[in-house]
Amino acid sequence: MLKIGTYEFESRLLLGTGKYPDQEIQRKAVKASGAEILTFSVRRLNVFDPPGENALEESDLGRFTLLPNTAGAKDATEAVRHAQLAKASGLCDMVKVEVIGCEKTLLPDPVETLKASEELLSQGFTVLAYTSDDVVLARRLEELGVHAIMPGASPIGSGQGIINPLNLSFIIEQARVPVIVDAGIGSPADAAKAMELGADAVLLNTAVAQAGDPVKMAEAMKLAVLSGRLGYEAGRIPEKTYATASSPSEGLMK
Amino acid sequence: MLKIGTYEFESRLLLGTGKYPDQEIQRKAVKASGAEILTFSVRRLNVFDPPGENALEESDLGRFTLLPNTAGAKDATEAVRHAQLAKASGLCDMVKVEVIGCEKTLLPDPVETLKASEELLSQGFTVLAYTSDDVVLARRLEELGVHAIMPGASPIGSGQGIINPLNLSFIIEQARVPVIVDAGIGSPADAAKAMELGADAVLLNTAVAQAGDPVKMAEAMKLAVLSGRLGYEAGRIPEKTYATASSPSEGLMK
Amino acid sequence: MLKIGTYEFESRLLLGTGKYPDQEIQRKAVKASGAEILTFSVRRLNVFDPPGENALEESDLGRFTLLPNTAGAKDATEAVRHAQLAKASGLCDMVKVEVIGCEKTLLPDPVETLKASEELLSQGFTVLAYTSDDVVLARRLEELGVHAIMPGASPIGSGQGIINPLNLSFIIEQARVPVIVDAGIGSPADAAKAMELGADAVLLNTAVAQAGDPVKMAEAMKLAVLSGRLGYEAGRIPEKTYATASSPSEGLMK
Amino acid sequence: MLKIGTYEFESRLLLGTGKYPDQEIQRKAVKASGAEILTFSVRRLNVFDPPGENALEESDLGRFTLLPNTAGAKDATEAVRHAQLAKASGLCDMVKVEVIGCEKTLLPDPVETLKASEELLSQGFTVLAYTSDDVVLARRLEELGVHAIMPGASPIGSGQGIINPLNLSFIIEQARVPVIVDAGIGSPADAAKAMELGADAVLLNTAVAQAGDPVKMAEAMKLAVLSGRLGYEAGRIPEKTYATASSPSEGLMK
Repeated sequence: MLKIGTYEFESRLLLGTGKYPDQEIQRKAVKASGAEILTFSVRRLNVFDPPGENALEESDLGRFTLLPNTAGAKDATEAVRHAQLAKASGLCDMVKVEVIGCEKTLLPDPVETLKASEELLSQGFTVLAYTSDDVVLARRLEELGVHAIMPGASPIGSGQGIINPLNLSFIIEQARVPVIVDAGIGSPADAAKAMELGADAVLLNTAVAQAGDPVKMAEAMKLAVLSGRLGYEAGRIPEKTYATASSPSEGLMK
Repeated sequence: MLKIGTYEFESRLLLGTGKYPDQEIQRKAVKASGAEILTFSVRRLNVFDPPGENALEESDLGRFTLLPNTAGAKDATEAVRHAQLAKASGLCDMVKVEVIGCEKTLLPDPVETLKASEELLSQGFTVLAYTSDDVVLARRLEELGVHAIMPGASPIGSGQGIINPLNLSFIIEQARVPVIVDAGIGSPADAAKAMELGADAVLLNTAVAQAGDPVKMAEAMKLAVLSGRLGYEAGRIPEKTYATASSPSEGLMK
Repeated sequence: MLKIGTYEFESRLLLGTGKYPDQEIQRKAVKASGAEILTFSVRRLNVFDPPGENALEESDLGRFTLLPNTAGAKDATEAVRHAQLAKASGLCDMVKVEVIGCEKTLLPDPVETLKASEELLSQGFTVLAYTSDDVVLARRLEELGVHAIMPGASPIGSGQGIINPLNLSFIIEQARVPVIVDAGIGSPADAAKAMELGADAVLLNTAVAQAGDPVKMAEAMKLAVLSGRLGYEAGRIPEKTYATASSPSEGLMK
Repeated sequence: MLKIGTYEFESRLLLGTGKYPDQEIQRKAVKASGAEILTFSVRRLNVFDPPGENALEESDLGRFTLLPNTAGAKDATEAVRHAQLAKASGLCDMVKVEVIGCEKTLLPDPVETLKASEELLSQGFTVLAYTSDDVVLARRLEELGVHAIMPGASPIGSGQGIINPLNLSFIIEQARVPVIVDAGIGSPADAAKAMELGADAVLLNTAVAQAGDPVKMAEAMKLAVLSGRLGYEAGRIPEKTYATASSPSEGLMK
C-alpha cells in the first residue's frame, strides 16, 4: 500500500499523460499499466475545451487520482500559481512541484523547489517534490514536511535509467515519507531496479508513451514495478566477486 | 513460446534446484516461479533413494521437464558420461552441457564444452550449452548444431548480473537458436534486463534459492521475465544525453 | 594554467593534508604530487603549536598556496566563522566552503553552502564551493559569483570514483569558472576520467594519504591529471558499438 | 620491466601503426608515446616498396621492436602463413596471433587462436595471443606456452574501454606470463584502469591514431600507462559505501 499524505493506493506505478501517439493508445496504456495516479501538466488544463475531446472520459475521472504538476514553472511563484489553478479547477489538493532550472537538461532548481514546497505546504497542499538526487536536499524537503520525495533517476525523457543508485539508496534510507523515483526510467529493468533499491513507487511517462508499442510497454512496466517490489521485500542475495556452486554434491533432487 | 529442439514451453524462466533452505520451500518456490523446466546436477541423481524423500513428488514429474546438467564434469569425457547416465535414468534427452574450467570462478571451459557438445549431438541429445559470453565461441557452438546457447551473465552464484551486455547483444543478434542467459543473475532487474536485450529465456538458481524469502523472490523473477520480454517486444525508447519534455504545451489531458 | 579568481597555478592537482601515516610521508607525497595548492581544515589550525612540529616547514609555506576549508561546519554561520578565522591567521583569502549536511555520507548541504558562499563573497573572499553534482545548484553558485565549483565525484573518502559523469559533464559545459572535481576519487583512472570530461582540476586526499604507498600514489595522481588533461585537449575518439579495423589493407608500414 | 619471452622493454605501451592521418603525424605520435614495440599487420608488408616511402625510416628500425600481427587471417592456417612470412622478411620471431571470427565485431576465434598458437609455438615463435576475455581460454593459451596473453577490453576500434573488469582481473590473477590489454581502449582513463587492474601492458592504436590530435594523445597515453602502473604498485584505497572524513579533528597541519 502506497500512502501519500492521507491518500492510499494499491499501484506503485504513477503514469504521465504526455506524448502518446493518440488518445486511444493513451487510454489503453493507462489501463494496461494499472496506474491509479495520472500526472499531467497544469499548463495543459483547458476549461474551455469542447466536451468529448478529453483523453480521459468523465467516467474515468472517478477511477484515477489526477496529480497536477507544475511543469513549465520557472520559479516558485509560477509553481505556486499553477498549483492554485489546479486546485481551483476542482482537482485534488495533491500537487507535484516541478521547477525546472535548466532548459537543456530539464533538471530541477533546488532553491525554487524548496521555496515552492514551503509555500504550498503552508497553503494546505499535499506536496510531492520533484528533485535531483541530492541527498541533503531531499532531507531538507522532508524537513519542510513534503509528503513524498521524487528524485530523478536521470534527465526527463532521456531513458538513461538510474545513473546514481548510491544517492537513491541514501535518500531512501533516510526518508520517512514515500520516495517515488521520477524521470529517466527507460525500460522495465530500470523500473524494477528502482523498486529493488527500496523506492516506494516509480513515475514514468516517455518510456511508455514513446515506446514502439505503448500499451504493451505499459503492461511491462506494471509487471516490472510489481517484480521489483517483491524482490525488495524478498531480500536479494549479496553480490560476490567469486563464484559459488549452485549444484552442491549432497542430494536434494533425485 | 520458447522452442528448444522439439520441445516447447510457455515459461521463459528455467529454475535450478540447488541450495534451497528445505524441500518445502523449494516446492513452493518452483510453483511460484511458473517454471516448466527444472535443472539439476546429474551428480545428485540417486536411484536408491527411499520413496517419499524427493523434493519433487512423483506427481510433479509429469508437470516439469527435468533438465539434467553436467555440473562437476571437468572435461568432455565426464560430461558425456553424466549425460548418458541421465538418459539411462529415463529422463528426457535434453542435457545442459556444463564443463567448468576453473574452480574459483566456475567459468566454463570453451574447448571441452565444444567437444562434449559435438559428441552428445552425434548421440542424438538435445544440447543446451553453458558457455562464457565469448561471441565467436557461441557461434561455433551454434555451427555444431546445439539447440540453445547459454551464455553466463557473470560467475555462477555471484549475483553480479549482466557485466557485459554488449557481448550478450552480439550473441543474441547472431543466434538462430534460443539464447538462455544463465548464471550470475542476482535480482529481478537483472532478469528483466536479460530479456530486454532479446534473450529467449533466463536460467537462475541462487538468486531465488538463497534469497531472504525464496518463494516471494521466485514470483518476483517470474514477473521480471514476463516484464522484460514484453519490454523487448514493445520496443524501448532510445537513450538520449539531453532531456526531452514529457509535458508538451499542446493540450491532451484537460 | 588554472586560474581561480586572481590566482594562477600550473598544477591541476589539489591535495588534501589529512590522514597521512606520518609527516615525513606527507611531505614526500606532497612533493611527488606536484601540487601547488594544499587544502586543510581550519579546525586543525593551532596557533599555539610549538615550532618544528608542523607538517609543512616554514620554508614550505612560501611554495604552496594553503587553501583552508570549512570542514566540520554544520551551517553557513559556522562556515563563515571558520573562513574568517583562517583569514585572520594570515593565510590567503581563498576558502573552500564545505558545509556537510549528513554525517553518514558527508554530502554537502545545498542551502547552507549557498548562504555561506554568498556571505563570504560579500566579504571579499575568493570562494571555492564544495557541492553535490546537482547541475542547477552549480549554476546558482556560479550566479552568486563563486570563483570555482567543486562538485563531488562520490562521497568523501569513499574511493568510488565518478558515479555520475553525465551531471559532471553538464556542470562543466555550463560553467564559466573552473570546475574542480572534489571527493570520491579512488585511483588514477578516476582522476584521469575527471580531467577527460573537461574538469579544470581535481582535488583529492584519501586516495593518496591512505594508499599502500602514498608517495608513489601521489606521483601516479600527478601523471593521471596530466594525462587526462592532455587527453581532453587532444580530443578522444567516439565510442562505437561495433568494431572498426585498425589494420586497413592499404600499405603504410612496410 | 616488461619481459616477453626473452625480450625486455621499459615501456608498457605497445602502439599499432594503422589509421594515422599521415606518416609525419604517425612518426611524431610514436615518439611521443615512448613505445618500444610497434605492431602492424603482415598483410601490409610490401618488400617491393620504393625506398623512402616507409612510415618508419631505416634508422628507426633499430630503435623499435616491430611486432607483426596476423590481422586478416580467418583461420589458423592463414595466421601461421602470415607469421612465417613476417619471419622470412627478417623481422623478429615475435608474432601477435590474431584470428578474427566475426567481421562485424572483429572478435577473435577461440579455437583457431588456440590452433595457430600451438603450431607457431612448435615452430619456435614467441607468441602473443590476442583473445577475448574468456578466463578459461586465457588459461588454455597459457598452458600451451604462449608468451603473453592479450585479452580485448572491448571490440577493436570501438573505444568502449574495459567492459568486463572482473574477467580481466581473473585473467591477470591466474597468469604467470604478461597480460597485455589489447583492443577497445578509448581514452587515457581506460589505459590507466587496465594498468591499475594489474595488466603488464596495454596495446592500442585507434585511440591515438584517430584522436583529434594524435601526437598529444600519444603523450597522454604514455602518462596514463605510467600512472596506472604506479597506482597498481602503490596499492589503491578500497571502495567504501559510506564516507570517511579526510579532515580528522586532531592537528597535523597547523
